[in-house]
Amino acid sequence: MNPIPPRIAAFRANGADRYGLVTDNGIVDLTPQFGDRFKGLKEVIEAGALEALIAAGEGRASTLAEADVEYLIPIATPEKLICIGVNFPDRNAEYKDGQAQPSKPSMFIRFPRSFTGHEQNLVRPPESEQLDYEGEVAIVIGKGGRRIAKEDAYDHIAALTLCNEGTIRDFVRHAKFNVTQGKNWDSSGAIGPWLVPFRDASQLDDIALTTRVNGEIRQQDRTSNMMFDFRFIVNYVSTFCTLMPGDVIVCGTPTGAGARFDPPRWLVPGDVIEVEAEGIGILRNGVEDETC
Amino acid sequence: MNPIPPRIAAFRANGADRYGLVTDNGIVDLTPQFGDRFKGLKEVIEAGALEALIAAGEGRASTLAEADVEYLIPIATPEKLICIGVNFPDRNAEYKDGQAQPSKPSMFIRFPRSFTGHEQNLVRPPESEQLDYEGEVAIVIGKGGRRIAKEDAYDHIAALTLCNEGTIRDFVRHAKFNVTQGKNWDSSGAIGPWLVPFRDASQLDDIALTTRVNGEIRQQDRTSNMMFDFRFIVNYVSTFCTLMPGDVIVCGTPTGAGARFDPPRWLVPGDVIEVEAEGIGILRNGVEDETC
Repeated sequence: MNPIPPRIAAFRANGADRYGLVTDNGIVDLTPQFGDRFKGLKEVIEAGALEALIAAGEGRASTLAEADVEYLIPIATPEKLICIGVNFPDRNAEYKDGQAQPSKPSMFIRFPRSFTGHEQNLVRPPESEQLDYEGEVAIVIGKGGRRIAKEDAYDHIAALTLCNEGTIRDFVRHAKFNVTQGKNWDSSGAIGPWLVPFRDASQLDDIALTTRVNGEIRQQDRTSNMMFDFRFIVNYVSTFCTLMPGDVIVCGTPTGAGARFDPPRWLVPGDVIEVEAEGIGILRNGVEDETC
Repeated sequence: MNPIPPRIAAFRANGADRYGLVTDNGIVDLTPQFGDRFKGLKEVIEAGALEALIAAGEGRASTLAEADVEYLIPIATPEKLICIGVNFPDRNAEYKDGQAQPSKPSMFIRFPRSFTGHEQNLVRPPESEQLDYEGEVAIVIGKGGRRIAKEDAYDHIAALTLCNEGTIRDFVRHAKFNVTQGKNWDSSGAIGPWLVPFRDASQLDDIALTTRVNGEIRQQDRTSNMMFDFRFIVNYVSTFCTLMPGDVIVCGTPTGAGARFDPPRWLVPGDVIEVEAEGIGILRNGVEDETC
């Protein structure tokens, strides 16, 4: 396993939205140095300044304890936040609908509002008991483009993060097409814990991706098994729309979501869900009932 | 038919993005007076200032000819841009799949980048000949909210506009779920021509909606026939996500898209598509081939 590379997080502390370098001994707040130039990490990515932030933070003493910050989703307002559906062979088989493996990925769009940050609770709404987890790797576009060739795809990725692509499962099937309304409940999923700079193909090509609920492994696979790999995804999405710096693509989940158990195993308040990927980190979230 | 109410448009003129009141004798640029406070019409809507703009512009001499402006989509960066699928009874029957009329609407999300403004050309990409039109009424949220009651829904709508929800039809069926990639080609649709303030239920409840291609009527219905009316849509969408000022909901198209003809009648360069609704106006667009 690779050592954990540098981690740049967005967080709220002392009443303001900030960003900084996460170290083993706390967080180096980089907002005082860079805040005038970059409002948030989207602007950092747009400026190609992620490595500059890392260089500025490394070796400095931390200014905040992790306990004193509230993690936010790394890119607060990406122009695009695209999710890839069924993307591991076993998972496709789970649908048991007799269809052959698709030649193109299923895709849907989520609003940033549907995600909360690392260590925040996912929110279970009163309308449904079917809150479910989906652990995924997410890529953040650094260099925009249209019709990006597969062989150039990695040059367009600036950073990696994780996603718990939390879903209100019964609402996914409200309509005969499209999963929109099951995938866009406020704070039903999470993105984080931070951005890791993408420097080498080995950070994506064959990494382990695991989801645990209360310590029990529910999903576990390797990115090398993805039906549509990261290069394909960047190429395919950029066929129809211009990718822009800060765009986030959530790249699909392994088999083992709660809906696939018999009986289904929905998330309930008190559960702790961890999405872990080699070289990126662990995205950890609890669950709470919404107070309306 | 109601007289056309005041029209506030976003446009590019003299090298800058602007907004103003559209009159029968040209456009009153309101950016000099309001630009410091409101960067664009989203900020105007957020501030509840649409009527203030109208009052400031009415009676003033126009400062720009329509020919001198390039219309933009009215809200450049809505937090959410949600589209309702199949929403007229005849249109649902067109799918001939034997399913009963759905109890919930199909919904999908488009990126603002997939739309161009009034009088601009829709772009047909080299990857497909299946560029299709869908004329629709779009509502712009003025007052945000969650779980908005149907009887309160109209209080949350600030303005109306039109949408040609242009679609690359073969890409809609690339995946077994979700129409995302057929609905998000850069500049494949249009929104506009302007915002009309929403002041009275009669502006939505039973208005004629017509789409013409080269003057020939292709789609024609009345909003009173919608399976899911505007009040239902506001209520339903706000069940799962918090609606915010400036959010745009595109509310579904009547029967008669080009895909439903035998053989299909796709749009080609030189075509002129007009989407018209009583009390809102006419959204007019040509078609051009993309130059890659």
